[in-house]
Amino acid sequence: MPPGFSEAGLRPEVTAKLTRGVARLLRHMGCAVLAEMRLANGRRADLMGICPKGTLTLIEIKSCRADFEVDNKWPDYLDWADRFYFAVDEEFPRELLPTDEGLIIADGFGGDIIRPSQDRKLSGARRKAVTLRFARQAAFAGFSEE
Amino acid sequence: MPPGFSEAGLRPEVTAKLTRGVARLLRHMGCAVLAEMRLANGRRADLMGICPKGTLTLIEIKSCRADFEVDNKWPDYLDWADRFYFAVDEEFPRELLPTDEGLIIADGFGGDIIRPSQDRKLSGARRKAVTLRFARQAAFAGFSEE
Repeated sequence: MPPGFSEAGLRPEVTAKLTRGVARLLRHMGCAVLAEMRLANGRRADLMGICPKGTLTLIEIKSCRADFEVDNKWPDYLDWADRFYFAVDEEFPRELLPTDEGLIIADGFGGDIIRPSQDRKLSGARRKAVTLRFARQAAFAGFSEE
Repeated sequence: MPPGFSEAGLRPEVTAKLTRGVARLLRHMGCAVLAEMRLANGRRADLMGICPKGTLTLIEIKSCRADFEVDNKWPDYLDWADRFYFAVDEEFPRELLPTDEGLIIADGFGGDIIRPSQDRKLSGARRKAVTLRFARQAAFAGFSEE
């Protein structure tokens, strides 16, 4: 196991670092980004991007093996975006990840899409609903009462 | 003319104060709010709210008589939201305003809807496009590069 890598915890500092890097990657792709977006099913997306033409792109960040292995719910995300990617750092044992889902390798400064997402193409009604939730959460997030 | 009131300028401090108060009113109504939203026609909406059920509510703030009289373009806003309101302060000569448009009287802390908006009901395609613009601008506005 590489130095500093622990499979015991969920490593919030790694998650925070990857969140920054992936958000930057998405913005460079022209996407507007919201962290911790609450979905209508009660789950939170680590990152949601609204990309050019309105394509919804959802990112699930995995900080370490344990973070992936304790989560059997990630397929719940697949119904909420046109594109889905796992994002992990260089040290993550990527053979764990399903090979038919998108993959981003990132650090705190950026990232690369290593494997493309499937193109799931939401229904118009679902995309409309998710876009509306994103809009409202982004505006409320940008606001702090004077 | 009341003390401190000048018809000569556009009184940015009054606009800023009314922007705060009207934004608070909208949030109390459950709307997510974005200031200075750029519309697809190149104009900026002083305030745009996405209210419950996705109703788009556009507010044009008028700081004084001159601010209203130099603007013959406010009808351009009517195609971009389901509801449209002028927002002015107590001192504004409200007889200037068209009586068939919505009216909000506000100060720096809140406001009241004095006259309801017409219900313009955007087309689905237009509402989708405006909601998407709002979502992207709100997310980019809430972001500053680390």
